[in-house]
Amino acid sequence: MAESSRQDKAARQLKLLSDALDSGRLGPVRRMVNSLSPAEIGNLLESLPPAKRTIVWGLVDAEDDGEVLVHVGEEVREGLLAAMDTDEIVAAAESLDIDDLAELMEDLPDQVIDEVLRSMDRENRERLEQVLSYPEDSAGRLMNPDVVTVRADVTVEVVLRYLRLRGEVPDNTDHLFVVGRRRQYLGRIPLTALLLSEPGKPVNQLIDEDDQGAIAVDTLTAEVAKQFEIHDWISAPVVDENNTLLGRITIDDVVDIIREQAEHQVMSAAGLDEEEDMFSPVPRAARRRIIWLGINLGTAFLAASVVGRFEATIEQVVALAVLMPIVAGMGGNAGTQVLALMIRGLALGQVSSANVRVLLWKEFRVALLNGLALGALLGFIVWLWFSNIALSGVIFAALVITLCCAAIAGVAVPLALRRMGFDPALASSIFLTTVTDVMGFFAFLGLGTWLLL
Amino acid sequence: MAESSRQDKAARQLKLLSDALDSGRLGPVRRMVNSLSPAEIGNLLESLPPAKRTIVWGLVDAEDDGEVLVHVGEEVREGLLAAMDTDEIVAAAESLDIDDLAELMEDLPDQVIDEVLRSMDRENRERLEQVLSYPEDSAGRLMNPDVVTVRADVTVEVVLRYLRLRGEVPDNTDHLFVVGRRRQYLGRIPLTALLLSEPGKPVNQLIDEDDQGAIAVDTLTAEVAKQFEIHDWISAPVVDENNTLLGRITIDDVVDIIREQAEHQVMSAAGLDEEEDMFSPVPRAARRRIIWLGINLGTAFLAASVVGRFEATIEQVVALAVLMPIVAGMGGNAGTQVLALMIRGLALGQVSSANVRVLLWKEFRVALLNGLALGALLGFIVWLWFSNIALSGVIFAALVITLCCAAIAGVAVPLALRRMGFDPALASSIFLTTVTDVMGFFAFLGLGTWLLL
Repeated sequence: MAESSRQDKAARQLKLLSDALDSGRLGPVRRMVNSLSPAEIGNLLESLPPAKRTIVWGLVDAEDDGEVLVHVGEEVREGLLAAMDTDEIVAAAESLDIDDLAELMEDLPDQVIDEVLRSMDRENRERLEQVLSYPEDSAGRLMNPDVVTVRADVTVEVVLRYLRLRGEVPDNTDHLFVVGRRRQYLGRIPLTALLLSEPGKPVNQLIDEDDQGAIAVDTLTAEVAKQFEIHDWISAPVVDENNTLLGRITIDDVVDIIREQAEHQVMSAAGLDEEEDMFSPVPRAARRRIIWLGINLGTAFLAASVVGRFEATIEQVVALAVLMPIVAGMGGNAGTQVLALMIRGLALGQVSSANVRVLLWKEFRVALLNGLALGALLGFIVWLWFSNIALSGVIFAALVITLCCAAIAGVAVPLALRRMGFDPALASSIFLTTVTDVMGFFAFLGLGTWLLL
Repeated sequence: MAESSRQDKAARQLKLLSDALDSGRLGPVRRMVNSLSPAEIGNLLESLPPAKRTIVWGLVDAEDDGEVLVHVGEEVREGLLAAMDTDEIVAAAESLDIDDLAELMEDLPDQVIDEVLRSMDRENRERLEQVLSYPEDSAGRLMNPDVVTVRADVTVEVVLRYLRLRGEVPDNTDHLFVVGRRRQYLGRIPLTALLLSEPGKPVNQLIDEDDQGAIAVDTLTAEVAKQFEIHDWISAPVVDENNTLLGRITIDDVVDIIREQAEHQVMSAAGLDEEEDMFSPVPRAARRRIIWLGINLGTAFLAASVVGRFEATIEQVVALAVLMPIVAGMGGNAGTQVLALMIRGLALGQVSSANVRVLLWKEFRVALLNGLALGALLGFIVWLWFSNIALSGVIFAALVITLCCAAIAGVAVPLALRRMGFDPALASSIFLTTVTDVMGFFAFLGLGTWLLL
């Protein structure tokens, strides 16, 4: 990691840019910013506090505006759009591919959307409207309708002539799609096959028989990403239920999805939205986070109410109050480990009713083993501290019980949430720590009441 | 999420396969497994408990063995390799590309490595040894030395003839690399440009001037992934310090890196290794996790020792013991939110000394605002519960203080760890919760001692 911080180009750019901004000389800032790719500019804008962000945004070349907007998170994008007038937005939109434009359209005010649609030619407008007609998390929204198609009965030579006539092909074109008379999808031809073949060969002999997968237009984007990973695709055709070719998804969009999934998993575990701007205004950030904290406050009261039932015990053995956070905390940590394994397994489709019992039994034994070992250690330290062997026994037993419950909860909570239709990455940790806190306090104080009074 | 579980192909395959295995008829199992791609087989093997895993592994077509080995996690791979004899491993190795083979070699016993090297022709052996000579996390290890190069002074027609003569090109070839006499890298030509150009054109006119990035062989893999994302590359050339072309990195390897980074972040936050087998043997899994739990036990004692200093206070006001987990827990939750933002920001290079003060000030104000709001709510509930206005005041003030400390720790802990050369994703949460526990207990019990006794 020390290595990577030394190499961290983005952080270096940020430092240079901030220094230039502070010095107030905007010429060097403009030159620096416009030497970067749109993705880098987007990353840089996200790193800047709002005031500096607005200044830098004003210095970005107009031709990059569209691409930069696509590369920033939703909340940052809203701020950038607010700083543009309608003409600038329309110009930015015109520079985008259909799939990127579709993503941007969701965040535009209605009046601007009308302007953008009016500025497009009929073919592109119809394509955009088609893409927008599919649900947000579907392959249809991800696809670009701009594809190169050929008919099955022509020769390589004809295709090559057609391509030269066409003059250009969309970015990341690695295959041509072979379609029938009514645009039904028949297969795809790698560009390399075209290059390697004799001119007289009919193209239908070049169709890649091993790689005939087409993505249904209603496939969820998460499943699209999996298919790309499984097959090492660069691009894949999208078809409707009649096998009509609608468009093409390319790996760059899939990489974005994978990044977003990863961010979603990390951020939602802390109750955050992955689209959150690091520098969002304080009242907005506070409002968002308070919901999560409020839910946690509720579950904390649940745990406190368990402790409250043992007030009389604590009054007599104050050491129980001193030690109880240890038991509950260890339960939370052990449960979190099981949870992390489970959430990964669920995301990869590696956990199902077929193996969950084996997994539960394994995790239970791991917890029992670690509970016995750490419980013995904990009991020994407590004996050194309080010289009370009964107290040592109580904390030993409580830890074993709590870790075993934590393991069971770690397996059961994400499964139950998923079955109820919730995102296990989002809500599991709240429920898990509620279980481990309640069980930890109950086991420790309950055993204490029973054995120490 | 309910949607995605319905669509989850991997989980469905797992269920079908498990049922077939349970029925004991291996014919259908073999057919089912071998209808899948190596990546899917790998995912399936990872989902199976060890006994079933060994059976299914024995049924996989030998020709897929190599690819499957590359697609599973390290721990699972060790188990699969243990079930193979030397001849099988050598045969599997022979089917792999150099970059994949390099990854596999690390896990092979020395004697098998010798066998594999002996089975290769000299050119491939030298290529493999070159790849293996670079550090594990570098571009050199990721690259495949098998690339198609052309000289600058030939025409499109000559290149096309050369390609037809060559007969095939490596997977994911989207560019040809133009090199000089001593293999120095001069630029790259998109395959599409070859297809679109007149045969008589010299290839040096086709060099893509906008896209001249080459990756230095010692670049860290994380930086390689960032560059691919920034430039939407499908493949990129790797050069040494003299600009000599050494090989090529392709997007499929980059997608694997991005997945691994995401897994690392999620798993290491719970003190787990992302290579961990979901079904690793109980003693092994227990041994691994106990280190993390042991560290947490140490920090829990630190927090408990703070509580221990206030035993006399708790004896007199037991309500403090009941309520203290709420304050500490809320601090932990609020701090975790800040931490999640910070770790993402650090990973993306969006946080540096240039903006950390602005960020800290923003997070402090968010914490203050939420501390005041939640503290007031908490104080009111405590007043309803215990009818003690002084206690309400104490918990109000303690929560405000704890949340503000949590915000500061959430920003400072990952930065400090990173500066000391540790991975912030790994160790931050332990340090953060130690701070929030200690501060939460100290503020609440300290104020209680001062104001309630």
